[in-house]
Amino acid sequence: MTTTQSPDSSTRFPEAAILADEHVPAVHIWRDFDARVEQVVRAHTDADLFAQWIGPDSLTTTIDEWSCRTNGAYRYVSRRGEEEYAFRGTFPFVGEDKIVQTFTWEGMPEAVALETLTFEDLGDGRTRLHGFSICDSFEARDQMLASGMEVGIHEGYAKLDRMLGAGDL
Amino acid sequence: MTTTQSPDSSTRFPEAAILADEHVPAVHIWRDFDARVEQVVRAHTDADLFAQWIGPDSLTTTIDEWSCRTNGAYRYVSRRGEEEYAFRGTFPFVGEDKIVQTFTWEGMPEAVALETLTFEDLGDGRTRLHGFSICDSFEARDQMLASGMEVGIHEGYAKLDRMLGAGDL
Repeated sequence: MTTTQSPDSSTRFPEAAILADEHVPAVHIWRDFDARVEQVVRAHTDADLFAQWIGPDSLTTTIDEWSCRTNGAYRYVSRRGEEEYAFRGTFPFVGEDKIVQTFTWEGMPEAVALETLTFEDLGDGRTRLHGFSICDSFEARDQMLASGMEVGIHEGYAKLDRMLGAGDL
Repeated sequence: MTTTQSPDSSTRFPEAAILADEHVPAVHIWRDFDARVEQVVRAHTDADLFAQWIGPDSLTTTIDEWSCRTNGAYRYVSRRGEEEYAFRGTFPFVGEDKIVQTFTWEGMPEAVALETLTFEDLGDGRTRLHGFSICDSFEARDQMLASGMEVGIHEGYAKLDRMLGAGDL
């Protein structure tokens, strides 16, 4: 499935839908959460909360730079035993229901994706997150899709579901 | 002319070539300078030098945030009488011959372009600058192209030529 259309509100995303855009070198991610917009936004802007859910179950994440405001930046390291993966980026825009950030895996320090996260109030206490990540080329986008990113996305959002269910936000 | 091919070294760009990419929502800018790579890079990384050449002749630029390093950010304001245009962005990557930065006009604070500047040694004391600016959509790219950006690009680089000729870098 490939689409650039926004799904209508009758579509549900209890699991993340990860889709390649057909016109531009971007990936779309849609995911619904059983929580208010401000709770889901807080899970993305608060360093301590973010570190608890980001990434696959098998990795533990430590934040070592976090300035989640317009023109701020971040860096975090995810570890599993001896393995270590460092990620960094900047925040060109942080608003109440939108975050624009860059994303780089430090193993490829010059490869930068530009991500726009939009948090939509579905009107019944649920929130739809739309992630749009654009790369410099279709090759870079396809490499990102082939990287195994979906494991971290699905397991990460499932952790966030559990935190929301437990009243941790 | 529309291309995604890198020009060969026999092509000369004494004036900037500004081209729409045919595959992705990006703009290419090529411009040659009669100076070494480190001089042209310094003109982009040093706040005082940058403020002297950026933008059209009719505007005066003041830098009010400048941290030109990986994960840093910038903000500057260009003025002509009562008119004021503020621009800001972040630096996801700053290397010796490559800078990746974001670019936003504060009048449209959520519109972020991702720019990659590459400085190539042409081997005869000249440097080729390639700018690649990708937007979220072809509409946003075409709007950028229609914004009158070329005046500031041509006049700005002509100022930089004069600074380089005067031995100011």
